[in-house]
Amino acid sequence: MDIADLAERISKGERRGLARGITLVESARADHRVMATELLSLLPQERRALRIGLSGTPGVGKSTFIESFGMMLTAAGLRVAVLAVDPSSARSGGSILGDKTRMDRLSRDPLAFIRPSPSQTHLGGVARRTREAVALCEGAGFDVVLIETVGVGQSETVVAQMSDLFLLLLAPAGGDELQGVKRGIMEMADLILVNKADGDLKPAAMRTRADYAGALRLLRKRPQDPEGFPQAMTVSALEEAGLQDAWATMQELHDWRKEHGHFDRARSLQAQYWFEQDVRAALLAQLEAPVAKAAMKDLGRAVTQGRMDPAVAAQQMLHMLGRS
Amino acid sequence: MDIADLAERISKGERRGLARGITLVESARADHRVMATELLSLLPQERRALRIGLSGTPGVGKSTFIESFGMMLTAAGLRVAVLAVDPSSARSGGSILGDKTRMDRLSRDPLAFIRPSPSQTHLGGVARRTREAVALCEGAGFDVVLIETVGVGQSETVVAQMSDLFLLLLAPAGGDELQGVKRGIMEMADLILVNKADGDLKPAAMRTRADYAGALRLLRKRPQDPEGFPQAMTVSALEEAGLQDAWATMQELHDWRKEHGHFDRARSLQAQYWFEQDVRAALLAQLEAPVAKAAMKDLGRAVTQGRMDPAVAAQQMLHMLGRS
Repeated sequence: MDIADLAERISKGERRGLARGITLVESARADHRVMATELLSLLPQERRALRIGLSGTPGVGKSTFIESFGMMLTAAGLRVAVLAVDPSSARSGGSILGDKTRMDRLSRDPLAFIRPSPSQTHLGGVARRTREAVALCEGAGFDVVLIETVGVGQSETVVAQMSDLFLLLLAPAGGDELQGVKRGIMEMADLILVNKADGDLKPAAMRTRADYAGALRLLRKRPQDPEGFPQAMTVSALEEAGLQDAWATMQELHDWRKEHGHFDRARSLQAQYWFEQDVRAALLAQLEAPVAKAAMKDLGRAVTQGRMDPAVAAQQMLHMLGRS
Repeated sequence: MDIADLAERISKGERRGLARGITLVESARADHRVMATELLSLLPQERRALRIGLSGTPGVGKSTFIESFGMMLTAAGLRVAVLAVDPSSARSGGSILGDKTRMDRLSRDPLAFIRPSPSQTHLGGVARRTREAVALCEGAGFDVVLIETVGVGQSETVVAQMSDLFLLLLAPAGGDELQGVKRGIMEMADLILVNKADGDLKPAAMRTRADYAGALRLLRKRPQDPEGFPQAMTVSALEEAGLQDAWATMQELHDWRKEHGHFDRARSLQAQYWFEQDVRAALLAQLEAPVAKAAMKDLGRAVTQGRMDPAVAAQQMLHMLGRS
């Protein structure tokens, strides 16, 4: 594979090149990893998309929202990439964004690019690959990169670690309950969007929005927020209502953060985070090689049978890895 | 240092040798680590102390309990070692067990051995060193090893990972509140001891015991427990009351677990856990060397300034470490 050529094609915004590049960063093969980092190093580093993280549990209408919101952006001439972080996809076989027919119009839009979550058995792997896919989309000159995740475990946290804005999509709640959204997730949100504000559900959506607006006001003020943020708004992805307002609000927040240095600071911290994560993961990946796995198993047996102290076995393992 | 000679001395139960061995396992120096693992490999692997983890927040009378309980054990002819896991000691300068005068009689008892928590900046380091100190005490032929910890963060979890029995020491509560003991801690406890069941506090202690007995019954049954466990009991460390009963209860549970294979199984899982932890920690420790730290800083700067992709910087870092 000619990496310089691939980088060139991606830089020009060529979709097939981008798809091929993402396949490369998703691969766990050692030679592919070398090529993937070479590819990343050859892309224009100065391009900056607006990275939007989007979390929402199944049933809130996430696909419909992405389709409507994405179409609105492409109608404004913006190029939109949609990626996903879904650690469950490897287990369940199914995957969010796996079924492009759920985003029928957007997937056929020449200004849009949709890519399902990589299949990996653990969140760390999914996260790292998706972070690199975001970098490729940015290098390909996309204006907006949407990173979707479902509300499971730590996946919101890793998506927030690669996003400039973090949206929480909710459905109208029955009564005044706050849908069991964890405080930690609430604290990450820059914008809460209550979807399905249409038809019979409209009053419930408005009530839910007010409940969340109240809850957001109770949270501690964050330095990266101007007055009045984070906000809660209603949208109807189905009727394509409220999307322009939501987009205007995102831009307002994004512009303020850029102007006040919060955008650059957040990007720096995120880059540092991924750098350290990558180094740690690569060091620990030595244990995944077949010969290392076999040695871990043998030494583990000696340890569990009480024939060897754990520290002694660990020393032998490191010796085998050539580390001591 | 003659490690074979030191191992010999420890195996004979010589206290000064044991103290010296623990100092060795606590050291972070690379040459000391090699000697420490050699020492661990030379100790008799078949000796088994009863390892008792003990957690309790400041103010519940932990020192007094350890002194009274320890004295009761030594009076029965048992040799008792007391260790501590206290991740806060490095920060605060002070340390649990640091002040032996709080255990005046026990510290002068020839059948007892008391050692304060190693000073380390992070829990992982404290935990690993203490786990190895437990192994040394076991090799030195102690019958009971008490591992004390304060109720901060994850320290109970790591103590439970090196204990056969896990005790939770509590003070009598005012009213019927459950002292904010986290559910996770409750689920680890084999025996809850409500201390200070003496004088004016006796009725409150009995009420608190009943509350906890009720709370324990609501937890899911664990395979490692016979009927009626985990239990809640009252003790008075000050009046040395209830300690014999508590000890009899611990022995009953311990005997049952030994007989039904739970003791061996738990020890195996713990050994495997520490083996894997040791390997991972050693791999990541490469990043702590001065030259590695400097490289991490330089590459980190290129990354935070947006000049280099995190994955590319990580690759260069691994290259520098000789890993790719």
